[in-house]
Amino acid sequence: MSYNFRENIEKMQGYVPGFQPTGPDVIKINSNENPCSPAPGVFQALANLANPANAGKFQKYPPVMWDDFRKVASKLHDVPEEQIICGNGGDEILTMLVRCCCDENRPMAYPVPTYTLYPILADIQNCPVIEIPFEEDFDIPKALFETDAALTILCNPNAPTGTFVTPTKIAELAKAVKGVLLIDEAYADFAPDNCLKLLQTCDNIAILRSMSKGYSLAGMRFGYCLTSPRIAKAMTKVKDSYNINIAAQVAATAALKDQKHFQANRDLIITQRARVTNVLRELGFKLSDSNTNFLLATVPAATTAADIFEKLTEKNIYIRYFNTPELADKLRISIGTDQQNTKLIEALQEILK
Amino acid sequence: MSYNFRENIEKMQGYVPGFQPTGPDVIKINSNENPCSPAPGVFQALANLANPANAGKFQKYPPVMWDDFRKVASKLHDVPEEQIICGNGGDEILTMLVRCCCDENRPMAYPVPTYTLYPILADIQNCPVIEIPFEEDFDIPKALFETDAALTILCNPNAPTGTFVTPTKIAELAKAVKGVLLIDEAYADFAPDNCLKLLQTCDNIAILRSMSKGYSLAGMRFGYCLTSPRIAKAMTKVKDSYNINIAAQVAATAALKDQKHFQANRDLIITQRARVTNVLRELGFKLSDSNTNFLLATVPAATTAADIFEKLTEKNIYIRYFNTPELADKLRISIGTDQQNTKLIEALQEILK
Repeated sequence: MSYNFRENIEKMQGYVPGFQPTGPDVIKINSNENPCSPAPGVFQALANLANPANAGKFQKYPPVMWDDFRKVASKLHDVPEEQIICGNGGDEILTMLVRCCCDENRPMAYPVPTYTLYPILADIQNCPVIEIPFEEDFDIPKALFETDAALTILCNPNAPTGTFVTPTKIAELAKAVKGVLLIDEAYADFAPDNCLKLLQTCDNIAILRSMSKGYSLAGMRFGYCLTSPRIAKAMTKVKDSYNINIAAQVAATAALKDQKHFQANRDLIITQRARVTNVLRELGFKLSDSNTNFLLATVPAATTAADIFEKLTEKNIYIRYFNTPELADKLRISIGTDQQNTKLIEALQEILK
Repeated sequence: MSYNFRENIEKMQGYVPGFQPTGPDVIKINSNENPCSPAPGVFQALANLANPANAGKFQKYPPVMWDDFRKVASKLHDVPEEQIICGNGGDEILTMLVRCCCDENRPMAYPVPTYTLYPILADIQNCPVIEIPFEEDFDIPKALFETDAALTILCNPNAPTGTFVTPTKIAELAKAVKGVLLIDEAYADFAPDNCLKLLQTCDNIAILRSMSKGYSLAGMRFGYCLTSPRIAKAMTKVKDSYNINIAAQVAATAALKDQKHFQANRDLIITQRARVTNVLRELGFKLSDSNTNFLLATVPAATTAADIFEKLTEKNIYIRYFNTPELADKLRISIGTDQQNTKLIEALQEILK
């Protein structure tokens, strides 16, 4: 019984998710999760579902096309329902688009550094990648306009840099690329603008949104894509028939409905982001203004990122350290609650004194 | 902005799920769903999760390797945890294995008729399919032992035929195939035996289990795979990082724990299966004994499957009619509750009188 897998699978390394520490005293600010509670309606919707009178909703397959969520999202974003495709987390939206567009002869292109899942999705799909380094201004690199990629991905605001490119510039990119342009807006809820308006003029774009960051639902896995009817149709072909369970559907619908709760949490995170940014600068870190719920900070010259990372870990404060050449002197820190940020600041002051 | 998708995606048709009628008077026996309520522990687990004190479980990403579920499954099946891979429904398990094994030069093989999702997964992956017709006895076709497939799939018990092949014969197939053998045991909970014991002697098999059929959790999307360490490692590379949300993890864990509830529901379905089988035979249908929670019945000579299907639909009773040459004279009927089966029987008696 000798057998082998596809060569690309044998060779590749899988994605390494952020460490998942548990315990009451742990401050977990390593995965850009939202430190605020989801909307009260989320708990209510799930509590309603958990009634044995609703046994039928467990016994039967869930809605194939996420009807309730789509209605709410359609109204909120003013985009027709049939142009909204939902996924088991934003990651599934990425997978759907990669499977629609890419293969051995159809490359994927994106600027780097960016979300480290993209090259892994390319490995799985066995498609070439065209990685184009950002310049110092973190604007769209010129070479990205000129590739022959079947799928170009722009994470905006970008992870892990927190930088932001205007929709006007992205519209130019959409016109220039030969394939589909995927705009990964997982962090758009914390940014000054977004690309929704481009849907009216570009039929080759797909905008990815996540319920994990702005809506505190990372645990429920729900992402969605706003796109053209043509791309939506292709994505529907490659998605699992029943790709989102009923619990995630009711939770995400309730969360999206409560815009007041969402806005309050977003404002809180933006306020805390300014606070932590200022303190880090005072402590000698270098960082540009963030457009997301995390900061990417270059550590002070007399220290190393690895050392600060380890010392914070000893204090039960978990941030993200990417052990790669281009990010070796940097740390990524998600914005926590007021209390969590105070503890982080105190810990950093102690470590750096 | 002219662009195209991969040729295989442009050409293919997507999977068409069973129709999803709603309403209190509807009898939905078209998707092999379980008519019994899930275990009380499922509702309890979800109600617990729905407490705002558990906000952290929503805010944070869910367990990457489904620790609690794996522990329970490992104990139940006496298979080490690291040989258990969980999916967002059994369909995601299929997708993972197809992506590990198949591509343009690495075919998929399976006997037909069988689960109609397999060729669609091959379309998405753009791999050749080797379809080998079952012989009249519905034993494993001889030609299946001799393909060069990278992935051979045997649905056992088979859908939509309800037929069953013994583990001894499947062990021979596992030894003969050159690639991975995926044994789709989505319906094994209703069968006389299963292939778990083969894990001790075959390192190239993957056994798929579903929580949708035996455990009444189709709405929660949870499937899992029992396999060799090597296959489990490859599957981990291609899975989404956080592929199952926290609600599905707690629900599936609670359901699997309650073996008493499971066995009672299974026995009820098996009893009802015998009852409906007998009545259908009395009414002139031809069908072999089923090993699943559904029946595939050839309609009496004086009627047509399309006609009976339509007349049942008019009575709000939804069964499955496959409009394909090989199944044109057959209907697939899922086993419902005692009451639902009574209504089905009365309706059929009226239609056929």
